[in-house]
Amino acid sequence: MFESAEIGHAIDKETYDAEEPALREALLEAQFELQQQKRFPVIVLINGIEGAGKGETVKLLNEWMDPRLIEVRTFDQQTDEELARPPAWRYWRMLPAKGRMGIFFGNWYSQMLQGRVHGLFKDAVLDQAINQSERFEKMLCDEGALIFKFWFHLSKKQMKARLKALADDPLHSWRISPLDWQQSRTYDKFVKYGERVLRRTSRDYAPWHVIEGVDVHYRSLAVGKILLEGLQSALKRSRIHPAKVNAAPLPIHVDQLNLLDSLDLSQRLDKEDYEEQLITEQARFSGLMRDKRMRQFALIAVFEGNDAAGKGGAIRRVAAALDPRQYSIVPIAAPTEEERAQPYLWRFWRHIPAKGKFTVFDRSWYGRVLVERVEELCPPADWLRAYSEINDFEEQISESGVIVVKFWLAIDKETQLERFESREDIPFKRFKITEDDWRNRDKWDAYRAAVGDMVDRTSTEISPWTLVEANDKRWARVKVLRTINLALEAAFEKSDKHDKKAKKRKS
Amino acid sequence: MFESAEIGHAIDKETYDAEEPALREALLEAQFELQQQKRFPVIVLINGIEGAGKGETVKLLNEWMDPRLIEVRTFDQQTDEELARPPAWRYWRMLPAKGRMGIFFGNWYSQMLQGRVHGLFKDAVLDQAINQSERFEKMLCDEGALIFKFWFHLSKKQMKARLKALADDPLHSWRISPLDWQQSRTYDKFVKYGERVLRRTSRDYAPWHVIEGVDVHYRSLAVGKILLEGLQSALKRSRIHPAKVNAAPLPIHVDQLNLLDSLDLSQRLDKEDYEEQLITEQARFSGLMRDKRMRQFALIAVFEGNDAAGKGGAIRRVAAALDPRQYSIVPIAAPTEEERAQPYLWRFWRHIPAKGKFTVFDRSWYGRVLVERVEELCPPADWLRAYSEINDFEEQISESGVIVVKFWLAIDKETQLERFESREDIPFKRFKITEDDWRNRDKWDAYRAAVGDMVDRTSTEISPWTLVEANDKRWARVKVLRTINLALEAAFEKSDKHDKKAKKRKS
Repeated sequence: MFESAEIGHAIDKETYDAEEPALREALLEAQFELQQQKRFPVIVLINGIEGAGKGETVKLLNEWMDPRLIEVRTFDQQTDEELARPPAWRYWRMLPAKGRMGIFFGNWYSQMLQGRVHGLFKDAVLDQAINQSERFEKMLCDEGALIFKFWFHLSKKQMKARLKALADDPLHSWRISPLDWQQSRTYDKFVKYGERVLRRTSRDYAPWHVIEGVDVHYRSLAVGKILLEGLQSALKRSRIHPAKVNAAPLPIHVDQLNLLDSLDLSQRLDKEDYEEQLITEQARFSGLMRDKRMRQFALIAVFEGNDAAGKGGAIRRVAAALDPRQYSIVPIAAPTEEERAQPYLWRFWRHIPAKGKFTVFDRSWYGRVLVERVEELCPPADWLRAYSEINDFEEQISESGVIVVKFWLAIDKETQLERFESREDIPFKRFKITEDDWRNRDKWDAYRAAVGDMVDRTSTEISPWTLVEANDKRWARVKVLRTINLALEAAFEKSDKHDKKAKKRKS
Repeated sequence: MFESAEIGHAIDKETYDAEEPALREALLEAQFELQQQKRFPVIVLINGIEGAGKGETVKLLNEWMDPRLIEVRTFDQQTDEELARPPAWRYWRMLPAKGRMGIFFGNWYSQMLQGRVHGLFKDAVLDQAINQSERFEKMLCDEGALIFKFWFHLSKKQMKARLKALADDPLHSWRISPLDWQQSRTYDKFVKYGERVLRRTSRDYAPWHVIEGVDVHYRSLAVGKILLEGLQSALKRSRIHPAKVNAAPLPIHVDQLNLLDSLDLSQRLDKEDYEEQLITEQARFSGLMRDKRMRQFALIAVFEGNDAAGKGGAIRRVAAALDPRQYSIVPIAAPTEEERAQPYLWRFWRHIPAKGKFTVFDRSWYGRVLVERVEELCPPADWLRAYSEINDFEEQISESGVIVVKFWLAIDKETQLERFESREDIPFKRFKITEDDWRNRDKWDAYRAAVGDMVDRTSTEISPWTLVEANDKRWARVKVLRTINLALEAAFEKSDKHDKKAKKRKS
């Protein structure tokens, strides 16, 4: 894989001096066009061998181009705010907006390579990390991002010579910190696992470019030209990643029977039972949230449902069990300008709770496969891929201890009509009913189909959907609280078992 | 000050039950109107005696109103990201957007009170903190915010009884942590310094409301009604804080002589001198940024200047001295939607560098007293108060180790014309010249006056302006770098002296 980056590529100064001005000018032009179009972000990943010119090249790019449109990001030590959240959070928060360029040093690849080289984990875990990166990048590209991945390479001999030269230069010596690199053992491992990573993550939408790092003229021109070509062709394309999806449309249930039909919407609770059960579940919830084990977890509750199904009321009963300092509620409406300049899931990543905290999403990332699908706010290709993107997202956050509980509050069409009408009569409830609600009602069946597909495709072992019979608000509220409590208890139990096993192994 | 909050205010259950539904409904209405108008944010500060019902009241407000429009914020331990920045940063990042309500527990007042009660500092420092809060709140109100400040009070006897009752209640006992409170010494001090704080920070635009906390019905209705009345009257007002400013307009210099006239724009450097001096200053800068002492500081460089004065070129020469991982460049253009929903300075606070880092602002908070003044984008009252708001801002960040260096790059009208014309000819520079630039040029004299006033009013000992003669780009670039270097050296020297003194005192 690195063979042709060890053959001594070089370009003489004369050729370089002749080519550099035009390249520079063209890069500036492309960068300006990028900013004007504001259609997509550019993400540049910088990896490879120490001493192969990574830092110097990034510095040069900043000199060639307009540094005001470039964000150079490093990811060293995690801050405590980052440690309290899933690992990917630190990358999400640093993504460049559409029209801008982000250069990521010390990105997800460096993290996995360091871990493997230093024996923190074995190949299986490395492969998991590789797989996650692949999905992450695929999603970014599908969302329009243009990704460049550069691997700066040196042969072992070249590396040793270069590190020595750098160390002798007082202006540069401060930068050579890891003595580590001088040891050939590390080099061999790094190259070995580097190859594994490159092999598996070089994809048509985000290929790796291996750059031989010895000759400054060669590597500068090579990187510059790859960037330029990629930028120019992306700027010309009418859409960055045209919807090439040839997938068949989602199957229609042959018998017209929908998952929602299986719900018994007549289930109800009388006032007395309700009050007793509500208080019991609220106290249980309050206790669970104060449990010491909660410190290793975070909780997310997602509320979706028909209009007027009682989401707001259910959320209030959940919140009422807690001190307001323990939770935050995120109402999801139309995205803001800054959110529109980012991949779809960015605006949800912003609100991922830290360890020990609880976030309620009043509507959520499922908007893409519900309202956006039904109202045709995005092309089918976008909502079709959203199912697996959402599953990936929930898997990622679950793995780092976020418990995700998802509710669909279901009512029937008659109940909705009654509630709409009564809302219009009560002054302080009139704001709850809008023109949109009546319009959505006309699309009852389309929403029904979308809900069926959503549950079929995103109800997973990690994060199952709970369908809540909500014709009776009391029934719904108690079921919501009970489901959350069961989820917390299951998570705590699992962690207890895990702790016991760990103790046994030790003793 | 607390007398009338120790007289046993109480409301019987019957009266409460009769009044509560209407109050609740009216609060919901007001909250909805707030969200619809999106004209101002509501900030609720919760302070006072432990056990006086602070938490319970906030919980109740969340039950009465729509919790989806309320953000409850606590400020306990600072995170390491917060510790690396000026103290006010944590409050700025948590400000609610227009149309929303933020409830701040553990705000700036609790911090200063804790510090004084536990003897971390004396009255003089408390008074400084009081003064800063006052200015901060004044600024928030001038920017439209509606602030409620609640002090929940209990007499010493009431407090002891209440803490005991809470401790006996298993549902609440977990919340009483500071045993501290049981000691009457802390109570006395807390009340004493609390009075000092309230006395000095109760202002017409943000008065304190002292609430006796013993009786749950009384305190709930009292708080609810204050909120409701304040909200309703603010919602009715056409502008939250109408520009009442009767200040005389800024004086015009009687002799038409402007500060900028005193610059000798003919100063220049020949190519050889330039190259030598530039390299020297860049190396010096690079060394200073790597100096260990830099870890206690952060650096901000502000670039303002005439169009085509060479800001971009100067910034590139500064950046070229560093590794791109050390700095970030923030180009200031029109604010985004999320930025417009916040006070003016919010979008600059977002980008305050952490300790050890360097941020370049390509245009800055001075836009308010330059382009916004000249183009009449805001009423005179707004830019007139901006001078002192900016001085406060720079003082605050300087105090916590941010070195602020500010440049005005000045050219004459002929030089500008030449550069405009030549830019139109060079393909990759054409994007640097727009219709706006030609329009601004017509207002040359108005900008000139604005610059004079800006420098007169915001060039301070803490953060002086440097006027840069920029007809010759070489001269300008070297002067910029040299000025930054001098500022860093001065800051380092001062900290050395400080360290020496501290050592002497110890030995």
